[in-house]
Amino acid sequence: MVDQQIFNKLLQDYKQRVDLALENWLPLETLNPVKLHQAMRYSVLGSGKRVRPVLVYATASTLGIPLNQVDGIAAAIEIIHAYSLIHDDLPAMDDDDLRRGRPTCHKQFDEATAILAGDALQALAFYILTHDSEMTPDASRRLAMIEKLALFSGSRGMAGGQAIDLASVGKDINIAELETMHIHKTGALIRTCIQMAALTSNTVSDAQFEALDCYAKKIGLSFQVQDDILDVISDTHTLGKPQGSDAGLDKPTFPAIIGLQAAREKALELHQQALDAIQCFGAEADILRLISHWFVQRSH
Amino acid sequence: MVDQQIFNKLLQDYKQRVDLALENWLPLETLNPVKLHQAMRYSVLGSGKRVRPVLVYATASTLGIPLNQVDGIAAAIEIIHAYSLIHDDLPAMDDDDLRRGRPTCHKQFDEATAILAGDALQALAFYILTHDSEMTPDASRRLAMIEKLALFSGSRGMAGGQAIDLASVGKDINIAELETMHIHKTGALIRTCIQMAALTSNTVSDAQFEALDCYAKKIGLSFQVQDDILDVISDTHTLGKPQGSDAGLDKPTFPAIIGLQAAREKALELHQQALDAIQCFGAEADILRLISHWFVQRSH
Repeated sequence: MVDQQIFNKLLQDYKQRVDLALENWLPLETLNPVKLHQAMRYSVLGSGKRVRPVLVYATASTLGIPLNQVDGIAAAIEIIHAYSLIHDDLPAMDDDDLRRGRPTCHKQFDEATAILAGDALQALAFYILTHDSEMTPDASRRLAMIEKLALFSGSRGMAGGQAIDLASVGKDINIAELETMHIHKTGALIRTCIQMAALTSNTVSDAQFEALDCYAKKIGLSFQVQDDILDVISDTHTLGKPQGSDAGLDKPTFPAIIGLQAAREKALELHQQALDAIQCFGAEADILRLISHWFVQRSH
Repeated sequence: MVDQQIFNKLLQDYKQRVDLALENWLPLETLNPVKLHQAMRYSVLGSGKRVRPVLVYATASTLGIPLNQVDGIAAAIEIIHAYSLIHDDLPAMDDDDLRRGRPTCHKQFDEATAILAGDALQALAFYILTHDSEMTPDASRRLAMIEKLALFSGSRGMAGGQAIDLASVGKDINIAELETMHIHKTGALIRTCIQMAALTSNTVSDAQFEALDCYAKKIGLSFQVQDDILDVISDTHTLGKPQGSDAGLDKPTFPAIIGLQAAREKALELHQQALDAIQCFGAEADILRLISHWFVQRSH
């Protein structure tokens, strides 16, 4: 059993690992066009929970895959996440000034640079998956990974989720519609983390793949429920973004629709379902179990 | 020798071919999120010169590659081009209201939808390259294509070119700096068309590949010189976008820096260099020769 102390150390190690990969993959600030590269680095490097890379590494660890084989996957997914945050923060979208405790990209630079930085980051993510020499040399598996990332980050995944999110502002939606939004907006990319890591191995059975995917669906949603809870109960300093920003934008949230207590219960229920999903794994999946626990207990 | 009438018919055929591929690849408007899918289809389908797909098909034709093997490439590149236009037209960028004779995406829908439509289109382009069953089954070649597209559309290609473009507004730049901007903004994607098509074949020699790439560089620039000339001499109706919009935005252009006559001579010189580059090919490359001619003679 991995204990809490070892878990915290692992999270730290994973974070350092992906930070190094990101540092290496992002174009230098001295390269032209300088401002664009500055904006790309500003938005990706520095703070950030690195939740998605952590999931990539934890899946690899569970499946016995050497971590250097998934560095590129972890970096690519984090870069996709970072681009989506840059664009979501734009005035025409959520109009946020603060992200991870710092000015958002368009505040630090300008809107045009923020749009282009997001665009270029998306392209960079796909570039990494074709170019990283440490990843599996099996080109078919790499293609399958790129397919997952493209599908789950596009109009039927993450970008589609943001469109549903924007369309739901100020509307009365029910819990099923809220879940559909989050399944796309956050859940799709979280599933991608686990599926892409699993695609690295050629010994994962269909049953194992399904188990991991089911786990990913549950924690993708529990992560979002906890996000909504934190938006109500936490403070701006701890969150690194304005507390109450969802409510301020009149965005539907789990606490708003089902109440704070029911939202807490829902998060715990999803956590339990995530644990159930990966019952077929032994102690090698403890890291995934602790991540699920972390998602519903975290304070930021 | 392909004569002008046959050439016009070929352009028409190529356009129809890619329009069908695009129609098939774009998500239906009835699929959720409906507005996002409407915006994606609105921006890609309909009019458009389809210059990039034409280059993909013409390269395939020159190299004896069956056209069905490059439909996916043609569609993917046109979709990348379309996403870049949507984002370039945004108020924070070029702030254009009219594109291809119709309201720009953010005018027809709204800014948030336009940003997301661009993002989702970029993802779709990469999805097509992994998913199209007609393209080469050689996964390594497909990976190489995706690498080209990601590199040439990112910060060191198309998106970088747009950043340089925005930074040059109102500045005194010289002809070399203007060329650098266009080499990135337009030239990179035009080179991608030809390189990706050539990657489909495993019988293209290094010398042939270099010849085609050199041709692509020349016509990529001549296309832009002619664009600048048309912005000065054509009218809004013919262009499908406001005449004089570059000058109105105080953007540097070839006619502004070297004069209209010298710009015309430069276009013709680049056309000649393009012809010289592909001297090693016989009549099978006539279509490429006629395209180069078209680029510098076109009126819109």
